[in-house]
Amino acid sequence: MAYFDAASAAPLHPVARQALQASLDEGWADPARLYKEGRRARLLLDAAREAAAEAVGCRPDELSFTSTGTRAVHTGVAGALAGRRRAGRHLIVSAVEHSSVLHSAEAHEAEGGTVTQVAVDRAGRVTAASYAEALRPDTALACLQSANHEVGTEQPVAEVAEVCRAAGVPLLVDAAQSLGWGPVDGDWSLLAASAHKWGGPSGVGLLAVRKGVRFSVRGPVDERESGRAAGFENIPAIVAAAASLRAVRAEAAAEAVRLRELTERIRARVPRLVPDVEVVGDPVHRLPGIVTFSCLYVDGETLLHELDREGFSVSSGSSCTSSTLTPSHVLKAMGVLSEGNVRVSLPPGTPKEDVERFLEVLPGAVAGVREKLGAPAPAAQVLQEEVVVDSLGKRCPIPVIELAKVFGDVPVGGTVRVLSDDEAARLDIPAWCEMRGQEYVGEEPADRGTAYLIRRVS
Amino acid sequence: MAYFDAASAAPLHPVARQALQASLDEGWADPARLYKEGRRARLLLDAAREAAAEAVGCRPDELSFTSTGTRAVHTGVAGALAGRRRAGRHLIVSAVEHSSVLHSAEAHEAEGGTVTQVAVDRAGRVTAASYAEALRPDTALACLQSANHEVGTEQPVAEVAEVCRAAGVPLLVDAAQSLGWGPVDGDWSLLAASAHKWGGPSGVGLLAVRKGVRFSVRGPVDERESGRAAGFENIPAIVAAAASLRAVRAEAAAEAVRLRELTERIRARVPRLVPDVEVVGDPVHRLPGIVTFSCLYVDGETLLHELDREGFSVSSGSSCTSSTLTPSHVLKAMGVLSEGNVRVSLPPGTPKEDVERFLEVLPGAVAGVREKLGAPAPAAQVLQEEVVVDSLGKRCPIPVIELAKVFGDVPVGGTVRVLSDDEAARLDIPAWCEMRGQEYVGEEPADRGTAYLIRRVS
Repeated sequence: MAYFDAASAAPLHPVARQALQASLDEGWADPARLYKEGRRARLLLDAAREAAAEAVGCRPDELSFTSTGTRAVHTGVAGALAGRRRAGRHLIVSAVEHSSVLHSAEAHEAEGGTVTQVAVDRAGRVTAASYAEALRPDTALACLQSANHEVGTEQPVAEVAEVCRAAGVPLLVDAAQSLGWGPVDGDWSLLAASAHKWGGPSGVGLLAVRKGVRFSVRGPVDERESGRAAGFENIPAIVAAAASLRAVRAEAAAEAVRLRELTERIRARVPRLVPDVEVVGDPVHRLPGIVTFSCLYVDGETLLHELDREGFSVSSGSSCTSSTLTPSHVLKAMGVLSEGNVRVSLPPGTPKEDVERFLEVLPGAVAGVREKLGAPAPAAQVLQEEVVVDSLGKRCPIPVIELAKVFGDVPVGGTVRVLSDDEAARLDIPAWCEMRGQEYVGEEPADRGTAYLIRRVS
Repeated sequence: MAYFDAASAAPLHPVARQALQASLDEGWADPARLYKEGRRARLLLDAAREAAAEAVGCRPDELSFTSTGTRAVHTGVAGALAGRRRAGRHLIVSAVEHSSVLHSAEAHEAEGGTVTQVAVDRAGRVTAASYAEALRPDTALACLQSANHEVGTEQPVAEVAEVCRAAGVPLLVDAAQSLGWGPVDGDWSLLAASAHKWGGPSGVGLLAVRKGVRFSVRGPVDERESGRAAGFENIPAIVAAAASLRAVRAEAAAEAVRLRELTERIRARVPRLVPDVEVVGDPVHRLPGIVTFSCLYVDGETLLHELDREGFSVSSGSSCTSSTLTPSHVLKAMGVLSEGNVRVSLPPGTPKEDVERFLEVLPGAVAGVREKLGAPAPAAQVLQEEVVVDSLGKRCPIPVIELAKVFGDVPVGGTVRVLSDDEAARLDIPAWCEMRGQEYVGEEPADRGTAYLIRRVS
């Protein structure tokens, strides 16, 4: 069995387990109390805060422990927006942020605020120039992830922080994916992270708010954690989170080199082992352990099941694997193929052999899924000028499979018109054209659904 | 060492520890994922929800796990108020609720809502009639604790629920103190609780919202826990919380009898062992493990330190033990003495010997504090018609000590005028009169602070 979904949650680090067990005995009491058990709990909490602050690169009194990374983002965004209410109500986020940031932005819009989404390039990366362009006199806050959770692309946080600083706008960095690898560079104002991403226990997030950043807590008052996390502190888990952060940091430099080699191997080998694959994400500016690729003519959910049966746990941004049946907003913003999408995120310590076995198993798994779906093989050419494909009522990846099946039937210069009412088609048909070097003419409304026009150019 | 502050936090139950350790291996992955580790986590979460729902007395799909009991209250109150926004913006709470409820009420007022605080009697208990009186056509929600956290008084929840139900108003019950002892009777609509109060781990609260109750989640959307708890589920802690709830429930009936005998013994013995003590809270309708008393002429913080040195961990609602230097709002609402306040809350399993030793130690500890503060001994009587005591700049319990010292100096019918600028005096001087059977005439503004008038009647 190989668990390749560390970007969702990492198994508990042995140091976290040890620290958790030790502090279950010492850290259960109320740290606000003056008696012995309370004082002991307070000491543990203070020590954990110092250790975590050192790893983050902030002062202990700038750091609060929250219940989850999502909660840290929600509280951080809402508090910074409220604190800067006088400056204005404009919020900047990148188009590829984690859902916790995008949901915060939606809530802000629902309350009358305005939001600018900064676009990314095909590798999923923003530029400082695009943040500079988005900044307005009424901008209250900008948000940028340190690295993307789906494709591993690292963002130019330091440059964006500089641009924001020059405009007097605080920058909140969602460092959930990267904090285990090292502190976030640059002059950020707020930072959020989540312990279970670095091998800490569930139930601990952290929120750093630099001194001098205007911050106003929303909602009911609470005395604990500077009012930034409501209710009784989860000290055993906090202690374990801080201890494991130190532990993974001690191993980070060496492990990053090792995992980067493994993911580099996947990046290089997958397109050679599997036909019609697009590896996505920035090839250089990327996290050590994440690699993502999409396979044409493949149903993501079926592929995940096949890989699970072979003993590999991976995730996917394909529409068929989400409860809403829409493709990942990250892949969408990047404009890359979303069908047959696979994210491999290796936990520290992943043995090379597991990666090799994955590379052995993957081609057969993809081929099996394609065969079941009737994916195209080279067809006898009839050369019609325009072919219409009716994919109404069919879901990803069927519309693209049907497009590919008939594509050989039109002569160069001819067109295919795909009728589809599947939201993923809007993303995947242009992506197929990009991959195949064919011309995507555009879409137009049809009687039912949408007609997508593709011109054969070669 | 004896830990007598279970109402703050109970040490981890052995069953909780076992369940936590077992599920650290099985429950760390994302339960929303389809691969093996995710399915295992989902099974654990589902089983824990079923067990907890059974203990609460609701359907599993009515129950969400939150990060703390405080968060459960904040989310429950805000969600129910938002869901009933069309009915109106009036909220009813009792005057002795936990701070999480009162802070929610303050936040609601800050947003333009209105709040009615229902008063309690001297035992800390509300009546259904007073809730009936507080209900208005625009009442959106009523809140009532199942039992009080400072004095242990149980509230008539079933009767209040009936009154609310008849008016079509949902009732939110804060069951944090009582859920370990049994389900909450009556037709409540929402219920909040906290696992570390029943020997579960920190980091788990629960919020039940009955089907049919209008509820609208405030703030950013999140997919997990019906949107009622943001971020990654803390499954190992949730499993431990559910397991320990079952375990304490299995022992509850027998343990309640045993602890009730112990607290009854404290209730009966303390006033005989220590002069000038008031035992507060309802003598009949009360939780098994909590007993609270106040000692005249005693500084609460010093007494807590003395008891800590003797190996007893207790808490206090005295002003000197709070960061804001105001006495507990609960004692204030009850109109009882707040100085020298001690809350003893016994964890299940407390040995009788610990309680006996506490009763041995307490009289000396109180006497020692009184001696240091120069508390009154019977004085030679000079019989002036009015004596003025200047306690300006002195804090609880000094004003009452100085009142008592001179009280023998006035004849029956004469008055003492105490000048004080300590907020606790407003509560404690009338309480002293009540205990002593003397007449509290009232207060009037003085050049500095307030003058409190007391007439000697016996």
